[in-house]
Amino acid sequence: MRTLRLLIAYDGTEFAGWQRQANAIAIQQVVEEAFAPLNDGVAVTIAGAGRTDSGVHALGQVASVNVEFSHSANAVWRALNVRLPPAIRVLDVAEAEPGFHAQFDATGKSYRYRIATTPVQSPFDRAFTWHVPWALDVTAMRRAAARFIGTHDFASLQASGTLITDRVRTLERLDVVTDVPGEIQILAEGDGFLRTMVRVITGTLVEVGSGKRAPESMTDILAAKHRDAAGETAPPQGLTLVSVRY
Amino acid sequence: MRTLRLLIAYDGTEFAGWQRQANAIAIQQVVEEAFAPLNDGVAVTIAGAGRTDSGVHALGQVASVNVEFSHSANAVWRALNVRLPPAIRVLDVAEAEPGFHAQFDATGKSYRYRIATTPVQSPFDRAFTWHVPWALDVTAMRRAAARFIGTHDFASLQASGTLITDRVRTLERLDVVTDVPGEIQILAEGDGFLRTMVRVITGTLVEVGSGKRAPESMTDILAAKHRDAAGETAPPQGLTLVSVRY
Repeated sequence: MRTLRLLIAYDGTEFAGWQRQANAIAIQQVVEEAFAPLNDGVAVTIAGAGRTDSGVHALGQVASVNVEFSHSANAVWRALNVRLPPAIRVLDVAEAEPGFHAQFDATGKSYRYRIATTPVQSPFDRAFTWHVPWALDVTAMRRAAARFIGTHDFASLQASGTLITDRVRTLERLDVVTDVPGEIQILAEGDGFLRTMVRVITGTLVEVGSGKRAPESMTDILAAKHRDAAGETAPPQGLTLVSVRY
Repeated sequence: MRTLRLLIAYDGTEFAGWQRQANAIAIQQVVEEAFAPLNDGVAVTIAGAGRTDSGVHALGQVASVNVEFSHSANAVWRALNVRLPPAIRVLDVAEAEPGFHAQFDATGKSYRYRIATTPVQSPFDRAFTWHVPWALDVTAMRRAAARFIGTHDFASLQASGTLITDRVRTLERLDVVTDVPGEIQILAEGDGFLRTMVRVITGTLVEVGSGKRAPESMTDILAAKHRDAAGETAPPQGLTLVSVRY
C-alpha cells in the first residue's frame, strides 16, 4: 500500500464545505470522484485535515489517500487537475509515509479571516471578505485577542450543538493585522480548532472593535464555557484555511 | 439640468460587457435600472467611458448621467449600492460640469491584463487571470512592447469586422510587469483603445514570449494594417479597465 499526500486549494463559494454530505456537493466528494478513474473506477476515501464549512476557502488544505496503483505522484497531480473544476486545484501530490493520515497526524493549523473595512466592498473581494464598513478599534481588538491566546477550554467559541467533549485547545497566535489597505485580517494558529471557532472569535473581536464588548470580558467568555457567552459567528466567506502543520 | 459623474467597479464575469445588449444582460442596463427609481421611475441613459467586452472587469469605469432631480450625490451613491448586485459597486458619485460626457470627454484610459504563470492557476484568480503555465521570455515581450508605443494606425490590433475608420491612437505606455509573484501583468495607457486592442496586444506579446514571433516583427504587424497580421486575442477575464483620464 502507498499513501499519497495532496495539497489542495479551493474557492469554497459554491460548495457545501469539505466533508461529504448527503444532499449537497462537498469538496471531498468532488475530489474523490476525480480520483476514482485513476483507481480503475474504484471509489476511494480521501481524508482532509480540516473540515472547512460551507463557503469557507482553502489555500493549503492537506488530504491523504491510500492507493494500490502505480501511477506516479506527478501523473496523479496532472490527472486530478484535468478532471477537477477550476474552483478546486491540486497544488501538489507527494508520497507520504504509508499510513499517514491528514487529519489525525496534523499537529496544527493556521487560518486567515479577511474583513473588508472600505465604505464599499470591492466586487472582486465579495466572495472572500466580510464587509464591516464602520470604524473598528483595532487596539481594543488586539487586547481582546491576547486573552484568547494560550491553552483554554474553548467551549464558548464553538458552534452550538457540537457533541465533542474535549474542547481544550492551544491557540498559539491570534494576530489582528492591518498590512493590507482597507482590510483587517485575523490570523489564527493553533494545535486544533473547534467547529466555527475562528468565525466565532472573529465575530466576537468585531463586537469588541465596535465598542459593544470590553476587551477584558473575553476572560468571562472563556470561563462561561457556553456558546451564548460569545459574539455572533462571522460569515463563512471571509475564512481561509491557510496551512496545516505536521 | 445637472450632470453626475459615477465611478464604478465591477466583476464582469457574469455580464455581457458594459454596453446595453438586446439579448444579454449588460452592466449599463443593470446600472440604468438601479438608477430609474431615483428618477421617479423614468429611464435614464448612462454613458460609460469604455465599452468593456463581455467578461472584462473594471476598477475605475467612469459614467455620466444627466438628471433633473435634487437628490444629493451622496444619496444617489447610497441608493445605487443598495439596489445593485454586489458584483457592481459604485465607488463614488460627484457633481460634474453640466454636459460632461464620460465617453466623449475622456482623454485617456489605462488597462491592466493579468497573466497567471504558476503551474496551477489559483482558484481565487481563475476569473481574473489568463493561465499561461509555460515559460515566457519577458525580455523579448518588453522589446516587442516597445515597438507598439507611440502614435500608430492600430488596425492590425483591433477586433476584425469593426467599422471604425480612424484607427490611429497613441499608446503612451505598455509595460510588462513582474512585480507580483506568479504573474506577468501588461499595463497599457493611451489616449484611446480600439475594440479588443489590449487583448490582441497581449495575445501577440505572449506569442513573442513563447518564441513564436520575433520582437522586431511587431513593426511588420503595425504596417500590415490587417487583423490577420497579429496574434490571438487573449481571453477577456484577464483584462481590467483601471482608470479613465479627463
